[in-house]
Amino acid sequence: MIKAGIIGATGYAGNELARLLTGHRQAEVKWYGSRSYTGEKYSGVYRNMAGFTEELCRDDNLAELAEEVDVIFTATPQGFLAGVLTEEILSRVKIIDLSADYRIKDAGVYEKWYGIEHKSPQFIAEAVYGLCEINRESIRGARLIANPGCYTTCSILTAYPLVKEGLIDPDTLIIDAKSGTSGAGRGAKIPNLFCEVSENIKAYSVAVHRHTPEIEEQLGYAAGRPLTVSFTPHLVPMNRGILVTEYASLKRNADGSLPTAEQVREIYENYYADEAFVRLTGEECPETKWVEGSNFVDIGFKIDERTGRVILMGALDNLVKGAAGQAVQNMNLLFGLDETEGLGYVPLFP
Amino acid sequence: MIKAGIIGATGYAGNELARLLTGHRQAEVKWYGSRSYTGEKYSGVYRNMAGFTEELCRDDNLAELAEEVDVIFTATPQGFLAGVLTEEILSRVKIIDLSADYRIKDAGVYEKWYGIEHKSPQFIAEAVYGLCEINRESIRGARLIANPGCYTTCSILTAYPLVKEGLIDPDTLIIDAKSGTSGAGRGAKIPNLFCEVSENIKAYSVAVHRHTPEIEEQLGYAAGRPLTVSFTPHLVPMNRGILVTEYASLKRNADGSLPTAEQVREIYENYYADEAFVRLTGEECPETKWVEGSNFVDIGFKIDERTGRVILMGALDNLVKGAAGQAVQNMNLLFGLDETEGLGYVPLFP
Amino acid sequence: MIKAGIIGATGYAGNELARLLTGHRQAEVKWYGSRSYTGEKYSGVYRNMAGFTEELCRDDNLAELAEEVDVIFTATPQGFLAGVLTEEILSRVKIIDLSADYRIKDAGVYEKWYGIEHKSPQFIAEAVYGLCEINRESIRGARLIANPGCYTTCSILTAYPLVKEGLIDPDTLIIDAKSGTSGAGRGAKIPNLFCEVSENIKAYSVAVHRHTPEIEEQLGYAAGRPLTVSFTPHLVPMNRGILVTEYASLKRNADGSLPTAEQVREIYENYYADEAFVRLTGEECPETKWVEGSNFVDIGFKIDERTGRVILMGALDNLVKGAAGQAVQNMNLLFGLDETEGLGYVPLFP
Amino acid sequence: MIKAGIIGATGYAGNELARLLTGHRQAEVKWYGSRSYTGEKYSGVYRNMAGFTEELCRDDNLAELAEEVDVIFTATPQGFLAGVLTEEILSRVKIIDLSADYRIKDAGVYEKWYGIEHKSPQFIAEAVYGLCEINRESIRGARLIANPGCYTTCSILTAYPLVKEGLIDPDTLIIDAKSGTSGAGRGAKIPNLFCEVSENIKAYSVAVHRHTPEIEEQLGYAAGRPLTVSFTPHLVPMNRGILVTEYASLKRNADGSLPTAEQVREIYENYYADEAFVRLTGEECPETKWVEGSNFVDIGFKIDERTGRVILMGALDNLVKGAAGQAVQNMNLLFGLDETEGLGYVPLFP
Repeated sequence: MIKAGIIGATGYAGNELARLLTGHRQAEVKWYGSRSYTGEKYSGVYRNMAGFTEELCRDDNLAELAEEVDVIFTATPQGFLAGVLTEEILSRVKIIDLSADYRIKDAGVYEKWYGIEHKSPQFIAEAVYGLCEINRESIRGARLIANPGCYTTCSILTAYPLVKEGLIDPDTLIIDAKSGTSGAGRGAKIPNLFCEVSENIKAYSVAVHRHTPEIEEQLGYAAGRPLTVSFTPHLVPMNRGILVTEYASLKRNADGSLPTAEQVREIYENYYADEAFVRLTGEECPETKWVEGSNFVDIGFKIDERTGRVILMGALDNLVKGAAGQAVQNMNLLFGLDETEGLGYVPLFP
Repeated sequence: MIKAGIIGATGYAGNELARLLTGHRQAEVKWYGSRSYTGEKYSGVYRNMAGFTEELCRDDNLAELAEEVDVIFTATPQGFLAGVLTEEILSRVKIIDLSADYRIKDAGVYEKWYGIEHKSPQFIAEAVYGLCEINRESIRGARLIANPGCYTTCSILTAYPLVKEGLIDPDTLIIDAKSGTSGAGRGAKIPNLFCEVSENIKAYSVAVHRHTPEIEEQLGYAAGRPLTVSFTPHLVPMNRGILVTEYASLKRNADGSLPTAEQVREIYENYYADEAFVRLTGEECPETKWVEGSNFVDIGFKIDERTGRVILMGALDNLVKGAAGQAVQNMNLLFGLDETEGLGYVPLFP
Repeated sequence: MIKAGIIGATGYAGNELARLLTGHRQAEVKWYGSRSYTGEKYSGVYRNMAGFTEELCRDDNLAELAEEVDVIFTATPQGFLAGVLTEEILSRVKIIDLSADYRIKDAGVYEKWYGIEHKSPQFIAEAVYGLCEINRESIRGARLIANPGCYTTCSILTAYPLVKEGLIDPDTLIIDAKSGTSGAGRGAKIPNLFCEVSENIKAYSVAVHRHTPEIEEQLGYAAGRPLTVSFTPHLVPMNRGILVTEYASLKRNADGSLPTAEQVREIYENYYADEAFVRLTGEECPETKWVEGSNFVDIGFKIDERTGRVILMGALDNLVKGAAGQAVQNMNLLFGLDETEGLGYVPLFP
Repeated sequence: MIKAGIIGATGYAGNELARLLTGHRQAEVKWYGSRSYTGEKYSGVYRNMAGFTEELCRDDNLAELAEEVDVIFTATPQGFLAGVLTEEILSRVKIIDLSADYRIKDAGVYEKWYGIEHKSPQFIAEAVYGLCEINRESIRGARLIANPGCYTTCSILTAYPLVKEGLIDPDTLIIDAKSGTSGAGRGAKIPNLFCEVSENIKAYSVAVHRHTPEIEEQLGYAAGRPLTVSFTPHLVPMNRGILVTEYASLKRNADGSLPTAEQVREIYENYYADEAFVRLTGEECPETKWVEGSNFVDIGFKIDERTGRVILMGALDNLVKGAAGQAVQNMNLLFGLDETEGLGYVPLFP
């Protein structure tokens, strides 16, 4: 059994890790770290876990934890891991970081978008960006995984094949993203109260959202050159789910014609047909409800001949494929397990 | 592998059966019966199942189905199974009926509350009421299981130990029940539209709801005599979940004192401490969210010394413990499997 | 024009007062008091008010405010008004208190249920309980109105005629109440986050909710003797609305028969037929959606002959008839205006 | 008093007309037309109207109605009005059509996008597109108003000033729209059930939504030439509200610099500062909740210097400014009333 520790176990992503690892046949949680609830019963804080664990919440001592477990998940605020990570810790334990600390290769970009100093840039180079469908092989041998953000996973996987194959003009890429409220975390803030979110929709962090450079970096690798995208997140009155709607101008074929739906479908299938967690919906629109509680990302598209654009759509559960599920998928890769172990859930409907 | 057929597979309970049986290691669905969608891909109707099955929906021919499978789940309207069941079918296959056809031992009571004639009363006597925590032993040897209703399961399990032990006066029992909207089914009816349900709560079927006689019959067995209860269902703007709040006058101890919380707790523990799917929350109030997607029923209580009443509270997921989950639990008992097989889900939160 | 001040203007009830007074032809808000937002634009805190006011939030200096306005609404935490109220203030200005400070005639009961000392019990006697349909005449001449609670208004108005007429046994009265989340206020607390409330229902404060003694006192006046009731509030995933479902045993007529629906209907009509804000739905179940945004309370009932009980149901908007609307109705009475002025809204549907 | 008739009074927009006209001091509803509920009490179908009207639903005989009223609102399916309108009717009564029948000047475009034959193209030319902020003067003298669609109103008003002033390249305009579920109407369809919509978000009618040509036509007038836009609607789990997020490339100033936020703000103010129902939020993001129940459209924007794009955001209540409120605003213009009469509602929050 793989022994796992969770730092930040009482956030929503932390609880989702607890849920998934509880159902995982080759791993078990040995440490529920929570600065806010240290000493309290974990299943008292998250009563969905009643009957599954009697553990108390523990502190967030990474060095001590590294001696007790095989893998540490850090579902912590930006800057936490960068502030405490050491070579000694990394030499003892695998780390899967759900924060943004090691996602961006250029520490300056990180510091600019996040507004904090990066305390351990020396580990950035070795960190592997844990988007399994793209970086599977690099992940297997890594010590430190930068688990992608929720918006990011959905945005990148949806666009990646078309950018990589040069089917769209990446400079025209616009990503309009819609997220359930669990993405905002469990902090007690007025804008996240039921009465502020229910019966409401709004954009936020327009043109300045922190997931933007992460999307740009990864899609830039696909395009083979730097690019910028418009990325606009929205808050939707639902618990889980991210939907991205992406717009881009199609590059015309040599004969001046637009790429066909068949061409687009083939490209997606070349990249994803063998992927366990990608479901291609073709010209049917993905919906977040169809992936709820699962590690799937559903991807569809529609060509608009009138405008010469293609509209891409992706849907995932922000707490699963957008956070904890992908983290477990990374763990499976790191430890040589079946990549789907513990992640075979049928989505919950309704 | 147990081969299972589902009649009514495209209702919400039918889809929940599909979800649970897909995750069950010793059963597989061989027949997705759906009168409305015959010939269509099941995973096109319920896209959560995409990637799990390529089966087409089939008709509802029970006799033919009986030759292909080991167990049939009927998630069908009242009267369907009673209209087609024969001794020959029953001799070939186990049947777990999620409708009300065989739940009530007195056909006259059934006919009065449901307003339809019972077409095969000859099978009522042998049908076993599939409330596993109460009737476990009878279930094991049965051919025909009357799977309890969602309101019923929650109402009965919450009150049963106190009625059975004579701690409350059963004639004072009042059950105020609140249900998520999936309990109303997938029929296209105006009252179930999003805009009619959202931001709204109402009682319905006051004093005439069909689950009433079922509750009365089962609690009557516990009390050792017939009883009547007030049962009022409410529609709540959420997908899943039933919460019951039950009120009853406590019988005083011999010395005139009220029973204590400790006494009540002990009784519950005597009945349920070893039950895999009952979680006792003591004086903490159960919440439907903490059981979502799981087969748990959470039960709590509070003594009100001012009024001499005890308030009992139970919460479950109406599609799982209130329908498909309990049906699978019954299947496990019928086939001698571990009772919890395929039902070990940690509830999904949030 | 009546000049009005609001203390606690940035709570949900305070904002509802702002909304209603803005639409009132004979009143205007001169003072938006808010301890948390002093100095900020009110319409920046509550952007629904953009275009209606340019006022800044001011502090909560009651003595100063008393010199500027004709009526003060205190939508403040328990204990605030009792701590600052003086005879001098009361001699200058009418006060409509939306807190519980002057609702309960026995200061000891107040202190027991609210757990705080009452700082100015000398004003309790003169305060008039502002339930307009019951105490209309006393309200007209008052200086200090104790505006009823939201659960209380709904619970009392629903049961009052039957208690007063002795049609039900008041000792059997059980009130199961369901509230939208705005009743919990705008405080930044984890249990009120969208993700904790959505897709969830729970009871809370079972047997100890602070509105209980208020209900008991008022219904005791109707019954002509003290009584206790079971009162259980529930939190429902919706913004606005309270639904109460009340259960009581009917007293039999002299000939041993149960009262008929016709008898019950007549009693309600005798009390409420001329009331502008009470709509009797007869045996149709009230729904909170049908009263949203309005000052109505909809009341219905159903006799259950099997159990000898009557089930009463009442629905109102907790922020209007349950708080700000009733406060405006009280203001109208205090200043000799048409009782319905500023309150004639058709409910918003859906 | 203006006598008004509503055809299609039992749809959501029809009920909203009933609500608004009930609160209008110079108009009254004389005819609640409803094919589905003819002969039933209107306030039995829409119980929010209980206490406001005792009228029965009547049929949809336009000719007969034209003799009884001064203005007819048709909140009917596409094709209805075009199929029955005659010169005689138009000579007697003003008509405000909430359907699409007369919105598009080119009948061929209408027929292509709606898939039905236009039965009375002879009236298209005289019909005035009832977007009050743009076409106010033409509306005053009209007989036949084509009341704009909900998505359309929001999309056009948000972009209009920048298109008209040539600040953006109209060929780059992408409109990502999000709508509450009341926009889908009150038809009993499975995709609109609570359980299908709640906890879900999806795009639909991608690249083929019928509001597209209407947006293109109106913005084309602003641009002074034909244009095409990408328009993608999404269904959001809320009752009311439309949010549009629009993306366009800014045209650079003569000196090569991007337009500044100040320039954009000035343009909006030039167009809308005197408009009663447009509220400019500047760089704050509009939210649908802040306009609920009101006739406001809130408009904001954000310049993204990195991409050279501007992101425009508009929010309105689809049933008010997106349908019935705008229809009443048109009625006010047609009859020479104060344009804001009956529309002065403060938005309902929360």
